[in-house]
Amino acid sequence: METIFTKIVDRKIPANIVYEDDLVIAFLDITQTTIGHTLVVTKSPYKDILEVPETLFQHLFGVVQKLSKAIQTAFEPKGINLLNNNGATAGQTVFHYHVHIIPRYDSSDITVLLPNQSSQLTTDEYKKRAAMIIAALS
Amino acid sequence: METIFTKIVDRKIPANIVYEDDLVIAFLDITQTTIGHTLVVTKSPYKDILEVPETLFQHLFGVVQKLSKAIQTAFEPKGINLLNNNGATAGQTVFHYHVHIIPRYDSSDITVLLPNQSSQLTTDEYKKRAAMIIAALS
Repeated sequence: METIFTKIVDRKIPANIVYEDDLVIAFLDITQTTIGHTLVVTKSPYKDILEVPETLFQHLFGVVQKLSKAIQTAFEPKGINLLNNNGATAGQTVFHYHVHIIPRYDSSDITVLLPNQSSQLTTDEYKKRAAMIIAALS
Repeated sequence: METIFTKIVDRKIPANIVYEDDLVIAFLDITQTTIGHTLVVTKSPYKDILEVPETLFQHLFGVVQKLSKAIQTAFEPKGINLLNNNGATAGQTVFHYHVHIIPRYDSSDITVLLPNQSSQLTTDEYKKRAAMIIAALS
């Protein structure tokens, strides 16, 4: 399966690559939502968080942290967001695993709204949800 | 330094804990932006991505992936977002490292807008930004 990111890995299309090893590649997000906005991508076209092998997932996030520190040094942003969208419903548009590093210079440069949905929630409903996760972990 | 998350680790305040080991703890986000919205937190109160030790960072993301799979099994969302806010400018409100796992059931249940800022960007400006990150990595 060839994605736009596979084409970048294969040098079929250009990108501003900032890091590469055997397993992951990182390059500037072409939209540059903020200065230094970077994507960290698995070289193999795993679709999402459910598909990426565990050791590769941890390796990729090691690279995410190293790059975040480099971006902090390079541009001195006031903050950094990490964002990973899995599934079209979650805003994923390229179905090849990637993590956004978004340096922040101002609170208005992106919008993230997480509505509080707790007003009607009972203690029992919280307990039920937690128990469902615990059951699925084992 | 005691944060609200340290108090959860120490059982001074209650939470719906779904996972715990020596280094990290995970519990339902009290806001439950969506069903199963979970925080994965370092037990020690590191402030942000720049402070968390590298091996702990990778361990934490291993837990994030395991929990994401469990949340997928438990609630069968259509997608999952990972979100990590570092710095008040990036929306961080508790200054103790944590990653949001946000299951998605509908595209309207949260709002994430990343404006495209590429319209005025020259090829040279992209190259300059990439070179600054590469220089800071070495």
